[in-house]
Amino acid sequence: MGPGKAELLDAIERTGSISAAARSMGMSYRRAWLLVDVMNRCFAEPLVETQPGGGQQAGARITEAGKRVRAAYLALVAEAREGTESEALELLTQSLRE
Amino acid sequence: MGPGKAELLDAIERTGSISAAARSMGMSYRRAWLLVDVMNRCFAEPLVETQPGGGQQAGARITEAGKRVRAAYLALVAEAREGTESEALELLTQSLRE
Repeated sequence: MGPGKAELLDAIERTGSISAAARSMGMSYRRAWLLVDVMNRCFAEPLVETQPGGGQQAGARITEAGKRVRAAYLALVAEAREGTESEALELLTQSLRE
Repeated sequence: MGPGKAELLDAIERTGSISAAARSMGMSYRRAWLLVDVMNRCFAEPLVETQPGGGQQAGARITEAGKRVRAAYLALVAEAREGTESEALELLTQSLRE
């Protein structure tokens, strides 16, 4: 059990940047960046928006789509039986893979 | 691509029974029953409630928990990029498996 994507979204919202989020999770910046990249590619709209530069405006934030995905994900997890969150979601993703 | 669980939940709501739902999807009753059983076990509360007997009251219906799970699932799928719904959800389930 290591740091996951949903947790990374939370950390980005909390810290306002991918590097600070990665640091707070004990994750490398490279890994965090890759996870964000995959999340952004998998969904119709990016879940995380980055603002390049070194000023006050620099950093990353969760988009509205990111908030919707996180909320729906947390709602599913909340319904899952304790200890079987993974199986419950796996079960639903199978619907699409069949 | 075959009949999935989310579709089965819809069919049960529409038809009011597991057997009719299975029939409408060209799925065996045994397979539909097993899928319902797994769904009910994976979540904290059952997603489908059955009423035994042969009368007007007999049949199956989706519970409130079932409706919440379906809504959250559909919300996630709606956010996924077309053609990558499966990958998008897979990505999120990995959060829990890591």
